[in-house]
Amino acid sequence: MDIKEAALQAHLKWRGKIRIEPNAPAGNAEELAVAYTPGVAEPCLEIQKDELKSYDLTRRWNMVAVITDGSAVLGLGDIGAVAGMPVMEGKCLLFKEFADVDAFPLCIKSNDIDEIVRTVELISGSFGGINLEDISAPRCFEIERRLKQCCDIPIFHDDQHGTAVIAVAALKNALKLTGKKIEDVKIIINGAGAAGIASGRLFLACGAKNLIFVDRFGAIAPGVEGMNSEHELLAQITNPNHETGSLADVIRGADVFMGVSKPKLLTQDMVRSMNKNPIMFAMANPTPEILPEEAYAAGAAVVGTGRSDYPNQINNVLAFPGIFRGVLDCRASEINDEMKLAAADAIASLVTDEDIANKTILPSPFDPRVAQTVAEHVKACAIKCGIARI
Amino acid sequence: MDIKEAALQAHLKWRGKIRIEPNAPAGNAEELAVAYTPGVAEPCLEIQKDELKSYDLTRRWNMVAVITDGSAVLGLGDIGAVAGMPVMEGKCLLFKEFADVDAFPLCIKSNDIDEIVRTVELISGSFGGINLEDISAPRCFEIERRLKQCCDIPIFHDDQHGTAVIAVAALKNALKLTGKKIEDVKIIINGAGAAGIASGRLFLACGAKNLIFVDRFGAIAPGVEGMNSEHELLAQITNPNHETGSLADVIRGADVFMGVSKPKLLTQDMVRSMNKNPIMFAMANPTPEILPEEAYAAGAAVVGTGRSDYPNQINNVLAFPGIFRGVLDCRASEINDEMKLAAADAIASLVTDEDIANKTILPSPFDPRVAQTVAEHVKACAIKCGIARI
Repeated sequence: MDIKEAALQAHLKWRGKIRIEPNAPAGNAEELAVAYTPGVAEPCLEIQKDELKSYDLTRRWNMVAVITDGSAVLGLGDIGAVAGMPVMEGKCLLFKEFADVDAFPLCIKSNDIDEIVRTVELISGSFGGINLEDISAPRCFEIERRLKQCCDIPIFHDDQHGTAVIAVAALKNALKLTGKKIEDVKIIINGAGAAGIASGRLFLACGAKNLIFVDRFGAIAPGVEGMNSEHELLAQITNPNHETGSLADVIRGADVFMGVSKPKLLTQDMVRSMNKNPIMFAMANPTPEILPEEAYAAGAAVVGTGRSDYPNQINNVLAFPGIFRGVLDCRASEINDEMKLAAADAIASLVTDEDIANKTILPSPFDPRVAQTVAEHVKACAIKCGIARI
Repeated sequence: MDIKEAALQAHLKWRGKIRIEPNAPAGNAEELAVAYTPGVAEPCLEIQKDELKSYDLTRRWNMVAVITDGSAVLGLGDIGAVAGMPVMEGKCLLFKEFADVDAFPLCIKSNDIDEIVRTVELISGSFGGINLEDISAPRCFEIERRLKQCCDIPIFHDDQHGTAVIAVAALKNALKLTGKKIEDVKIIINGAGAAGIASGRLFLACGAKNLIFVDRFGAIAPGVEGMNSEHELLAQITNPNHETGSLADVIRGADVFMGVSKPKLLTQDMVRSMNKNPIMFAMANPTPEILPEEAYAAGAAVVGTGRSDYPNQINNVLAFPGIFRGVLDCRASEINDEMKLAAADAIASLVTDEDIANKTILPSPFDPRVAQTVAEHVKACAIKCGIARI
């Protein structure tokens, strides 16, 4: 039985990858009087006086919404909101398993930015955080930006920032391995969508100077045709030498390649045209831009992919469970860049120098230290930033 | 420690009356590949082809949203959406405990009818049913009416229909006790809000002919001042003799009194002015319109209240868990009047003639037969009505 059939049969058997369980007794009239009427009036009145009490008196302290509009589900594209639900449920399962976060899946049956923003804003009082998922670019940028303005709880589009955090962690250890500094390296990001753009922005926040985005139309630079509004913004803050042309043109002399694009579009010749000891993150799924064995044969110093059957899997589950555990534990009002970088540092710190020398730059997703370490670093950072509320 | 303090302390200890639990394994790379990527793509594609597959492949088959805008929480009034969450969580706890329904609490931070309707519509694809809760009248009528039009899952405002179902069940057994017929009795409903109006409408559906609503301004009749839009509609279909005046005026000669109003506004003299062997449902909480012992002393045949410390508690928990269990079990697209009456019949049927003779007209909320019997009757009725989808 192949994975497709196995997954279908498993889902039919489970009938849902999460479920609700009671967390209070309600088996007789006395218990009902405390958990429900008339006793429940008292916690309601406490929250009316001070809304933050909702974190003490309801499940809000541990509850995250996993929300999609179904517009960019996995690599399947716009399959519709309801069809995205198995992914959202899966995400909720991972939240619980990896960091004991209660997460609940919600699909929004609209692709309209205004409607999505307003819907999430209106239900945000039920949650301690919002994890946006599988929303297409460039819509996802505006949706997240506006939600951060109107909500007082953390908003986190995992396709963007989860990937960005792992990419920074991987880059840090890869730079250690190759003895290069982030200020000095030339970085190419192929695929200027949600994950690529957020990773690039976080690289810049880490000190990267020479970063070039490439998309279907070639390198992003001022005046290039075919760019969307987000690309126009990127053209202003990246590619300092205004290099233009195809991926093959701009990858020459680069130290780092990150692909969030299409299978097999990177050739060994392109790798050979890069600077010595290039760092390669080939994250197209399920088939990467270049297979690790091919990249190594062409001179790569270290290779990461999105696959679990190769070392250095750039897997978001390294980041989002611990990040939300951290922000929930201190009731942070947002997840800022400092906190993302703290999460990346936490992940990078779990790989020993010896492992790095052996080309292992990321911990295993099943390393039980990961979520806890990320949570501790993120919480400490939120407190330092003054946005913790506990 | 009084109930208020006990409830507050219990809520602080529980930190949420429900929680999320995993329902599938995710402890290693192989399990993750089935529950999450890449395997999860397959159930997504199945749902894209046929949205009803979401009931087989996600938790939707058993998932109900409990939704409020916080505008009419218990007897506390408009305390705000987030402050209503302890009640919503409590309701979810009862759904799980009484009928094994997964229910999730959501508060909507808006009092605007259009916004509430659109928000619920947009997230409805995540659920198998919607339980509206503690939304003020007359807004609740329009919200429910419009949601029934735009959603293809059951919409049920429990403050209305839960109460109505129990009231019909109680009335049936009370009429059996007194040997009267619903066609012949004069019924007074004091308090023309959500619960009163829905109960009255369901009494009419059962065959009641002489029904009079009374509110602050007196009996509802054509031309009376102070009525809202919903009252205007009621004036057309109730009060056939166009009686006007106060409660004391119109209750004369009545056979049934149902109060969903204010404590202690019914006097023994008013009871004495009613027809022989009057049936009294005094449901104001926590203090009824008249205490049972006072009503009996003034000649009542049988008394029901909203309180658990008197017999015949008119408690919604007799209805909503079983009703939703029934509609979920057959994927019904709505909950219509026939199904509500089937639920009322189911509840009424659980009281023996001997118990009725002893003035017990409702089963205990903790009778384990209740939810199951209600679910079976509701499911059978949905199938008969042709709105089951399984």
